[in-house]
Amino acid sequence: MSARMIVSYRVRGDARAIEGRARDIAVEQSVEMPISAIHEASILADIVGQVEKIQDRGGGWFDVDIALAASTIGADAGQLINMLFGNTSLHDDVVLCDVSLPADLLATFGGPGQGLAGLRRRAGAQDRALTCSALKPQGLPADALAELAFELALGGLDFIKDDHGLADQSYSPFEARLRACANAVRRAAAITGRRTRYAPSLCGHFGEMQRQIGLARDEGIDMVLIAPMIAGVSTLQGLAQANPDFAFMTHPTMSGAARISPALLARLFRLFGADAAIFPNHGGRFGSSKETCGDIAAGLRGPWGDMRASVPAPAGGMTPQRVPEMLRFYGKDVMLLIGGALLSAPRDELAAETARFVRAAAEHDYGETDA
Amino acid sequence: MSARMIVSYRVRGDARAIEGRARDIAVEQSVEMPISAIHEASILADIVGQVEKIQDRGGGWFDVDIALAASTIGADAGQLINMLFGNTSLHDDVVLCDVSLPADLLATFGGPGQGLAGLRRRAGAQDRALTCSALKPQGLPADALAELAFELALGGLDFIKDDHGLADQSYSPFEARLRACANAVRRAAAITGRRTRYAPSLCGHFGEMQRQIGLARDEGIDMVLIAPMIAGVSTLQGLAQANPDFAFMTHPTMSGAARISPALLARLFRLFGADAAIFPNHGGRFGSSKETCGDIAAGLRGPWGDMRASVPAPAGGMTPQRVPEMLRFYGKDVMLLIGGALLSAPRDELAAETARFVRAAAEHDYGETDA
Repeated sequence: MSARMIVSYRVRGDARAIEGRARDIAVEQSVEMPISAIHEASILADIVGQVEKIQDRGGGWFDVDIALAASTIGADAGQLINMLFGNTSLHDDVVLCDVSLPADLLATFGGPGQGLAGLRRRAGAQDRALTCSALKPQGLPADALAELAFELALGGLDFIKDDHGLADQSYSPFEARLRACANAVRRAAAITGRRTRYAPSLCGHFGEMQRQIGLARDEGIDMVLIAPMIAGVSTLQGLAQANPDFAFMTHPTMSGAARISPALLARLFRLFGADAAIFPNHGGRFGSSKETCGDIAAGLRGPWGDMRASVPAPAGGMTPQRVPEMLRFYGKDVMLLIGGALLSAPRDELAAETARFVRAAAEHDYGETDA
Repeated sequence: MSARMIVSYRVRGDARAIEGRARDIAVEQSVEMPISAIHEASILADIVGQVEKIQDRGGGWFDVDIALAASTIGADAGQLINMLFGNTSLHDDVVLCDVSLPADLLATFGGPGQGLAGLRRRAGAQDRALTCSALKPQGLPADALAELAFELALGGLDFIKDDHGLADQSYSPFEARLRACANAVRRAAAITGRRTRYAPSLCGHFGEMQRQIGLARDEGIDMVLIAPMIAGVSTLQGLAQANPDFAFMTHPTMSGAARISPALLARLFRLFGADAAIFPNHGGRFGSSKETCGDIAAGLRGPWGDMRASVPAPAGGMTPQRVPEMLRFYGKDVMLLIGGALLSAPRDELAAETARFVRAAAEHDYGETDA
């Protein structure tokens, strides 16, 4: 087999049947037809998936490593997901856990355009955690969302993103919201002297998103939010490649908890160009464990070929009170994202409450870091 | 609440906690922030999701219906998926089962451009099941795939599609494959006098797919295969709207078995423009039940606003031997898709074996239909 990737699955089954099941997965994820009907030696040697390792983890679960030809991918992110889990996602006895990719494929996709270092430069924040909040709720008109953005920016945040539910609705059309919020953060910057970045949420298909990025660029904006499991990973890849001046923040909506390892998914988002990746933090509204969150952060920030590090953005019901604990857990290379808890403040205290959050992040003593 | 959709979930939990859990889902899928922090009466009345019904199904499972404002969707397929299941997909105690959409939203999306009737017209087949096969395995060069297409077309199929693993790989680039296979089905048509449609598999993002459709149109092709859960449902929607002369066949890869009802997903693909939808048939390589397959077919073909019917294409390890049984189960409004079992025939018998499949479909006595 020429250059190949090793894909790791966790498979439920029994010891007598696992070898056959592993071979079935290897065939389903490669040629998807009876091996006996394939006569070309090169396909049998290079393209048919090969079971590399089966390890009994106990409790009826097995770790199965399968080698797949890297040449099946071409250069498309969607085709990578298709080869990793496509038809096998239809079988409920399999979880996609991990993948090891050859250097050529890493270089093909390339990863974040800005990454951790780029976002730090933009925020002028070298030695502290980055801060972020979200504009919501859905249903507010553009002007009201812009008022929130103004108060949040007065509070000194590095980044403000649209809620991922803000799309192109009649009560808050994308373009009107973009202009209103971009203007709001400019007005705040004129007062505070520091520029908060506003990241609008993209919607639609690649062509519509390209148009939205064009509108954003005209407003001096250089960062957007995208949900890759809805937009399609090829859309993230294409946008990141077509807009090297932009930073991309990913949202995990529709990524499902049960069948693809969240750590792998976050790492794939990084591979396809995510500069920062939102994920559900432990102890919030979603059921992630500390261990999963640690794995996600490691996958986003750790060494991976020549790729830039992405910024982990743990979220989902976070509060300013949790800032010290989160910074002990994640260290300073993180973006703290607090939405609803800030927005619960009375409007005339929103900027002050935000400023307290910003100060807690800036003044944290990293002597206490767990990591 | 103004126009709204009713979303049905199946939720695992216990009777004492289910009301709270249902309310949490309603909030997560609408405003995604504490209700106490929302002061606008119109948002509380119109936008915040409302629990409509909770029904104990026994065994620790509950049916939960939640009303969501249709205005949260705008006109984007991706935003519809986001509102139906986005963040809630991250919770593993919830399955998305069904949705009832207001007539305006149905009209906005519009459904298939050709549908069952259009594909029947193209195939010149009014009173029988449609037939289809797939080009594989992955790894064959374009010329070899085209040879297969030639033999399959000689056998008299209505449709030949690319395997969903065929993308834009160095061993079979999209454009070379397209030209070779389009030429092969033309050569066969010159011999048989009947035109088999070749549907190439699209890959990449919307912009790349638009380019691929343009190349296909230049070759006289009028149908393509797309995997909406990889490409993004907005991509399907955008392509269907931009190319009203094309038929779209959807592939279920990456749709996952466990967390979204396959019948709902197939129906959403129809809504967004699928003229034919492939799904795993019962008794094949995937674990679908007869009941699920019946529900999928009903969702694709049944009355739904003014929308055209789509063609169910049950697949996944089907054989010519199963044709009579499948036609008894599905009736004639179906596309029979047999790939690997035909391709297992020796090359010099492929056309004859295909012709037997085509004849079995054409000569079936629908007096015996179950339905």
